[in-house]
Amino acid sequence: MHLNPIQLFDTESSTFTYILSAPGSPEAVIVDPVDRQLERDLRHLERLGLKLAYVLETHAHADHVTSAGELRDLTGAKAAVPSGCGIAPAEMQLNDGDVLTFGNGEMIEVIHTPGHTAGSMSYLWRGNVFTGDTLLIDGCGRTDFQSGSADALYDSVTRKLFALPDDVRVWPGHDYKGQSVSTVGWEKRHNARLANRSREEFIKLMGELNLPKPKLIDIAVPANQNLGLPHGG
Amino acid sequence: MHLNPIQLFDTESSTFTYILSAPGSPEAVIVDPVDRQLERDLRHLERLGLKLAYVLETHAHADHVTSAGELRDLTGAKAAVPSGCGIAPAEMQLNDGDVLTFGNGEMIEVIHTPGHTAGSMSYLWRGNVFTGDTLLIDGCGRTDFQSGSADALYDSVTRKLFALPDDVRVWPGHDYKGQSVSTVGWEKRHNARLANRSREEFIKLMGELNLPKPKLIDIAVPANQNLGLPHGG
Ligand SMILES: [Fe+2]
Ligand SMILES: [Fe+2]
Repeated sequence: MHLNPIQLFDTESSTFTYILSAPGSPEAVIVDPVDRQLERDLRHLERLGLKLAYVLETHAHADHVTSAGELRDLTGAKAAVPSGCGIAPAEMQLNDGDVLTFGNGEMIEVIHTPGHTAGSMSYLWRGNVFTGDTLLIDGCGRTDFQSGSADALYDSVTRKLFALPDDVRVWPGHDYKGQSVSTVGWEKRHNARLANRSREEFIKLMGELNLPKPKLIDIAVPANQNLGLPHGG
Repeated sequence: MHLNPIQLFDTESSTFTYILSAPGSPEAVIVDPVDRQLERDLRHLERLGLKLAYVLETHAHADHVTSAGELRDLTGAKAAVPSGCGIAPAEMQLNDGDVLTFGNGEMIEVIHTPGHTAGSMSYLWRGNVFTGDTLLIDGCGRTDFQSGSADALYDSVTRKLFALPDDVRVWPGHDYKGQSVSTVGWEKRHNARLANRSREEFIKLMGELNLPKPKLIDIAVPANQNLGLPHGG
């Protein structure tokens, strides 16, 4: 049966964090927590009576620092990360097709969706897909740095994510317009960048975006590859 | 079985709008929609494949204008509003104890929770309570205008909302700190204004807040009493 996650938003980086849980167990999973929201997120787990089993990252973020390491250390949860993102100190390195279980038989399927970064993963749980910066609502993540590839993102979205059932709900890593959720069916038909567009058109479009370099990238990526924890010395 | 609603946020007024739906039917209910988010909300209903059965208001808001009338007119949903709020053009005037049904046997219980305004209602659905501005996360709505009463709010929260099971999730009408959801149990034990405080202490506290008059109140309240639609004439 379909269950919505709890969606939390960091206004400074426009990042969504998700808490996944289901009746029958207090175990929960958090996806893409943000460092400056550590207290908020801990308090939500406490308020909801939840016990964190896993901290999941969709990729090594360039625009904000994760709280994955701190959350893990404070709660005893395991950090589970995409194997191709260079996030060394995590308990689990995830690969395409892996299944993570928590709570009372809850299953999260790992789908490798490279393109925004080479290691980016999407996570499928109870008819919801958490797409990180691969597929956004009516958009997609940039592909011009951090081992990004418009060619790879085109395949990840059109062959993997758009192959999911139409009613699967799409929960993105960011939104800049106050939106919360979409569906595979809607994005397949209407996504401004990816619907009804050839691979060549998409690669050309992404190559012409000329986006500024993210302000935090030189700090955030190395920090996130250490789960947001200070580098030991 | 517990289901989370979909939570949408208007950054300008820090207002939450909720979409309620359940497997087995495309029928949905929206709670407290905001005028400037009309397009966003219509698009979410479209993306999720939902058909609006009811537009629900928790009270006649003073800080933003509702899109209830427009949503109703565009979707064919019925507007359902608290009977004591002077919202004349609604299809349904709700009273304490009423039950609204939609979808495949989904039930919404109406709980009269005066205090922020005399007519304010809370709505209980599948282990979630939508509290409008009566009970906020670690706070409560003001009680100094619009037929507000700290005395009445104290009873509404401590006798009615805190009497719900501890694990009922509390979804407020506003939040100003990036928070999403709480529970009855947590608020009962920790709410900064209402936990472990006598009626007299609470009334004194609320009387000393000295909040500025909401900028939009003289426009918003009459507009909202007409479901946000232009007054004819
Ligand atoms: Fe990213
Ligand atoms: Fe209000």
